[in-house]
Amino acid sequence: MDTTDRLPRDTLIAQLQSALGAANVLHRCEERMLYEYDASALDVALPDVVVVPASTAEVAAAVRIGAAAGWPVVARGAGTGLSGGSVAVAGGLVVSLTRLNGILRIDPANRLAVVQPGVVNVELSAAAAAYGLYFAPDPSSQKSSTIGGNVAENAGGPHCLKYGVTTNHVLAATVVLCDGTVVRLGGTAPDAPGYDLLGAFVGSEGTLGIATELTVRLTPNPEDVRTFLAIYDDLDAAADSVSAIIAGGIIPAALEMLEGQGIAVVEQAVHAGYPLDARAVLLIEIDGLREELDAQTERIEAICRAHGARELRAARDEDQRQKLWAGRKGALAACGRLRPHYHIQDGVVPRSRLTEVLRFTEEVAARYDLLIVNIFHAGDGNLHPLLLFDLREPGTRERAITAGEEILRACVAAGGTISGEHGIGLEKRDYMSWIFSEQDIAAMLQLRNAFDPAGVMNPCKLLPTGASCADIKTAQGAARALATGAWI
Amino acid sequence: MDTTDRLPRDTLIAQLQSALGAANVLHRCEERMLYEYDASALDVALPDVVVVPASTAEVAAAVRIGAAAGWPVVARGAGTGLSGGSVAVAGGLVVSLTRLNGILRIDPANRLAVVQPGVVNVELSAAAAAYGLYFAPDPSSQKSSTIGGNVAENAGGPHCLKYGVTTNHVLAATVVLCDGTVVRLGGTAPDAPGYDLLGAFVGSEGTLGIATELTVRLTPNPEDVRTFLAIYDDLDAAADSVSAIIAGGIIPAALEMLEGQGIAVVEQAVHAGYPLDARAVLLIEIDGLREELDAQTERIEAICRAHGARELRAARDEDQRQKLWAGRKGALAACGRLRPHYHIQDGVVPRSRLTEVLRFTEEVAARYDLLIVNIFHAGDGNLHPLLLFDLREPGTRERAITAGEEILRACVAAGGTISGEHGIGLEKRDYMSWIFSEQDIAAMLQLRNAFDPAGVMNPCKLLPTGASCADIKTAQGAARALATGAWI
Repeated sequence: MDTTDRLPRDTLIAQLQSALGAANVLHRCEERMLYEYDASALDVALPDVVVVPASTAEVAAAVRIGAAAGWPVVARGAGTGLSGGSVAVAGGLVVSLTRLNGILRIDPANRLAVVQPGVVNVELSAAAAAYGLYFAPDPSSQKSSTIGGNVAENAGGPHCLKYGVTTNHVLAATVVLCDGTVVRLGGTAPDAPGYDLLGAFVGSEGTLGIATELTVRLTPNPEDVRTFLAIYDDLDAAADSVSAIIAGGIIPAALEMLEGQGIAVVEQAVHAGYPLDARAVLLIEIDGLREELDAQTERIEAICRAHGARELRAARDEDQRQKLWAGRKGALAACGRLRPHYHIQDGVVPRSRLTEVLRFTEEVAARYDLLIVNIFHAGDGNLHPLLLFDLREPGTRERAITAGEEILRACVAAGGTISGEHGIGLEKRDYMSWIFSEQDIAAMLQLRNAFDPAGVMNPCKLLPTGASCADIKTAQGAARALATGAWI
Repeated sequence: MDTTDRLPRDTLIAQLQSALGAANVLHRCEERMLYEYDASALDVALPDVVVVPASTAEVAAAVRIGAAAGWPVVARGAGTGLSGGSVAVAGGLVVSLTRLNGILRIDPANRLAVVQPGVVNVELSAAAAAYGLYFAPDPSSQKSSTIGGNVAENAGGPHCLKYGVTTNHVLAATVVLCDGTVVRLGGTAPDAPGYDLLGAFVGSEGTLGIATELTVRLTPNPEDVRTFLAIYDDLDAAADSVSAIIAGGIIPAALEMLEGQGIAVVEQAVHAGYPLDARAVLLIEIDGLREELDAQTERIEAICRAHGARELRAARDEDQRQKLWAGRKGALAACGRLRPHYHIQDGVVPRSRLTEVLRFTEEVAARYDLLIVNIFHAGDGNLHPLLLFDLREPGTRERAITAGEEILRACVAAGGTISGEHGIGLEKRDYMSWIFSEQDIAAMLQLRNAFDPAGVMNPCKLLPTGASCADIKTAQGAARALATGAWI
């Protein structure tokens, strides 16, 4: 955006205070510092001012004031993103949505909920539990990430294999556009009339507008759940089992893989019952009607054994099930024992190419002198190579970024893509040209420009536009990340 | 679009002939007449020229030539649409996609197919059957409508209750934009990076571009299917059963209702085994694993009886199943026995308001001296009031349109919407303001203008823009429809 006509920061602050009340405008450095990075912490940037609105009207007022004053506007939920989406890399106004945290309505007959964007993911499921319903998207951050952020990033999660990523669970949204206009996107009809702008909005990473109310689908709790750990001495055998289960007509609720030395590390930290000597394990969960699960259990057993599983353990009760999941869910934290810092990648490959790309990640890690652990959503080919290192060793940050790039290039070469669920944000905007043609990106830019011609909303994100982002990243990035320990 | 700089029609034709070959440019009146209406036949308009390209490059060339010459460009599949979407109401160039009818690839491992837009819906399922797969969206027109048209209208169908409408089954598209640029939208990853422009494209009714290649999801054939006819002496009891089945956690593969005198009319024509004296019948189909279906059968029986079903008949074999479906699928044709002409409406209401709106449709029909039959997708509240009449009676066309309008208004007032699956096209563009605010429509116009600033692609459709459409409709509409019998 053009910054020459920008109003002074003091004027911006005064206008925001007048509209939202002084208590809801955070402008002192120590207040703003809480909003300078997300969970990736690859990029750090101090916003010029942060507002904490409490209604759609207040969000609209803040956006209108920020845009008219010539400052960027960046929406922020819980800040758990992994691609820099909520980092105000170009400075400006951060709109924190944490006060918009009301569950406005749960409608069990129509299986939907109307929520504000700041509702924490698991809190909606907790509230819906009284009706036998839950919100299906379950990103690993679900205990802290908000539904607004899930929508902005089109978040995935282990159970999205069966139930679909966030976009499949959003029915309608109230959205504040870059000039403060409020529009309503989507609807509860199966095939809403008009353009599906809601679909384009979900996953637009804050670049098209700010959702202030969301109508989301709730899913009935399954009658029963079965959870298995399949243990392999051979990586190909595990990967083949993944393909064979899906090809066999079973879509498990979740189908996760841990492989290599990650298994032992996790086991030593979490005591989930994983075998220390396995080459790979699959965490397989199926849900549905009891009768259906009996049949599926037999088929999964047969498939895993036919493809060389050493053992298939079934969780006997909810306690054992929770233990098996604790390993998966505690894996990232457990890996902190291996090295002080990490960088988690997010790529996608066709299931049939899993083994080959996993082997390549190991080769890359060795070549760049990094440790690697692969713990990921195998069912939909969504790899999360976890690169582990010590940032105090000079040049490590650059090596980690380059290694991550090589791995993503391999995903693309294998017919996959550069992101499965963590978004593009800052981290991957320069990689968009690997998978999209100039014309494809131009079409996306047309959409962005139609909604936000001045680039007010979350500039420098998602689409490769202009060069200012890289400059800002260089100036503020690595040194601050190291100093604050924010890479961890 | 601005027509003052338009090149002469002869020049347009010469340029198209040079690019596509003379045989693929239809310009004589008797050739073009085959392309002047769709299955609604509410609106009729003769295109100035029709092209029949055989590749993406030829579609791009035709669009580029038409746009540069200042003529509208209208894509057309099989012409089975019900809202005037493929009618060249503003004249210009119709791009017929019937020669782009190849199934390019079926990929059973990844459960997808790559097809050209002119593939007829059922032909894809026939080709996929060898792999135990099918294409789930099943509009009633599926024996003739094409996948490109299904995508343009985001078509529904009985089995979309469980499996979702067309947009849930499209993974990627190659699209020719208004200037002949070719872009690739979507991808096969669960959460494709970048804006979800594919979502906005599906259901955009030819106003954003023309798909020339589609990657679609294939669904595994269920292990088993059970089909039931639930018979009611009371309309509320039938409608309550619909709500209770869904609220009970069962999403049937299909949940259709026939009510009133339509039942007897259909039975007399089709001999499906429907009781002549029933007030309403539900056609309920469930599919899945055998064990699951046993459990669901018991629950459906219990629910229907608890809500006052007189009888629940199960199809004993595939023959009986096909008979039950023949009634539903032959219903429109059967109603031709009642009156010579019909107008089928397409509205949506919350399931809980079904009875009230059904009663209202009867009252409206009586008030306007029309006959009405309701045969529809009850499970998702998608009503299809079939207004029957004789156009030779003066004023009938206007009465039918006004009655349809009143019914749609009632759907909206009940918390529903103006279209469930037939699209907006010409027929309902003036009703868009009933459900969308000025800001909402402005947001959609922003998208349209971003992709097609000159209004080349299918002008006068979907969004209420300009007034020229109404004028054109008046000049060419009713008289031609009557003369050709096209209302039938």
